[in-house]
Amino acid sequence: MRRIDAVAAMRELFEAHGRGRVPQPPQVLTVLPDSRGDFITYSGILPEDGVLGVKVSPYVVTPSGGKVTATTMLMSLETGQPLLFCDSLALTTERTAATTALAVDLLAQSDAANLAIIGSGPIALAHLRHVLPLRPWRRIRIHSRNISAKKEVLEASLGEFQPVPEIVDDCSRAVADADVVLLCTSSGNPVLSMDHIKPGMLVTSISTNVARAHEVPPDALARMNVYCDDRSTTPLIAGEMVLASENGWSRDDIRGDLGELAIGRAQAPSLIEPASSGPWALASKT
Amino acid sequence: MRRIDAVAAMRELFEAHGRGRVPQPPQVLTVLPDSRGDFITYSGILPEDGVLGVKVSPYVVTPSGGKVTATTMLMSLETGQPLLFCDSLALTTERTAATTALAVDLLAQSDAANLAIIGSGPIALAHLRHVLPLRPWRRIRIHSRNISAKKEVLEASLGEFQPVPEIVDDCSRAVADADVVLLCTSSGNPVLSMDHIKPGMLVTSISTNVARAHEVPPDALARMNVYCDDRSTTPLIAGEMVLASENGWSRDDIRGDLGELAIGRAQAPSLIEPASSGPWALASKT
Repeated sequence: MRRIDAVAAMRELFEAHGRGRVPQPPQVLTVLPDSRGDFITYSGILPEDGVLGVKVSPYVVTPSGGKVTATTMLMSLETGQPLLFCDSLALTTERTAATTALAVDLLAQSDAANLAIIGSGPIALAHLRHVLPLRPWRRIRIHSRNISAKKEVLEASLGEFQPVPEIVDDCSRAVADADVVLLCTSSGNPVLSMDHIKPGMLVTSISTNVARAHEVPPDALARMNVYCDDRSTTPLIAGEMVLASENGWSRDDIRGDLGELAIGRAQAPSLIEPASSGPWALASKT
Repeated sequence: MRRIDAVAAMRELFEAHGRGRVPQPPQVLTVLPDSRGDFITYSGILPEDGVLGVKVSPYVVTPSGGKVTATTMLMSLETGQPLLFCDSLALTTERTAATTALAVDLLAQSDAANLAIIGSGPIALAHLRHVLPLRPWRRIRIHSRNISAKKEVLEASLGEFQPVPEIVDDCSRAVADADVVLLCTSSGNPVLSMDHIKPGMLVTSISTNVARAHEVPPDALARMNVYCDDRSTTPLIAGEMVLASENGWSRDDIRGDLGELAIGRAQAPSLIEPASSGPWALASKT
């Protein structure tokens, strides 16, 4: 998978989506009885490549905790026959990070220099990998809950990056003066406070399957220029958008989605107003 | 597959469904762009067996016509890992026929003797196979459009059954005096007229993926005791129910579904009124 330019693939995909060439079927969440978890079915079509794909991602509750898996099948639009059947947990990690990276490339100022990453799992490291080549980063800070406990292991993984990310115990210090903050956690509750979010800062969020999960305080959306992956589906799924909609924020306030940005129909915040006028966010939840 | 008692499996399944132990997620239809067809995603859960299943059934349009395929994956509710990945076109045929057979067993009078089958493809023959042991049939007639052209091939397949089905060119003659009529076609338009449907006759229907497809005239529903597979989903999918709903028929008129019948919460028509009071139908579309 490392040989694939995932960001370029996502850019092509969202360009096609912006031009109306890639339909986005709805996600379907099915709750398992007896609080045993749930599963989500995600489907997609690439008409020009002649394939459809369905990913089934169960969240199963076991005595030792919950576990998310993902399995994908691709089928031919020419023959209707299956083409590929694979575990897609690693693919999900790459695609999530590459989508965020595309958003950073489309939304961050060209001279963005300070990067903060909240989260230190495989998804956070994939974000770092995909975002690294996009801007002339001078400083990278990484923070997560209990990060001090895994400092040694993490340092080994981070040594390969340039500049070497600084492991930071305190969230406020991690995001202070950041141009770009990548939220890469599975938290159901905000990992940033309103005070953390500063004018000119780009904040991206991935969030998780949990109902109404959100990494950003929903109240913050009214103060931000909000972008998302897909205008027609993200506001129905992203927890902070669902919650903000119940308190006066409207999905019509979304400045653009990745498809619109990719084809130039929507504009990055630095092009629509002075950088100091407000923070910018992307809720990235495909 | 022939070694499995599919009717018994469907009976167990619908009993569990009747007791609220088997959730029924919605089907999702996604239309392909440029009139290239569509695909339907069907999912299900068997909590007691610890599995979930997702079937993806594309209908792809090719220069030589349309083609339906089906691929199913089963996943473990314990581990979230895939258990089975298989072509499921044959499985769909068996399940469709076994569901109809369960309906016949639950709805037909115990002394039903005359059986008519409309359709002569693999699904029709599977119906015949599953329904054969259920009643003391004395006469079986089979009819389909252009059946005379395939008489010889069909006779070879029918020879194994007892009583040997009679191939009939004329639909009216096939269904005259039938106690049970099984509609097993992929027709989008009625294969029976109002005149064919007589008091006391049980008519079952499978229909096909085509939007608003129906084998029974929608107007007939108002004159029939109507049953279906699943009260919560069939009326949204079955073409004759969708059409009848636009003309005054209500899904509240459904006498019972297979789950309710299987656990005795709904009753067969012979138990609720004299056999002569009206025909009975089942729209069987899982």
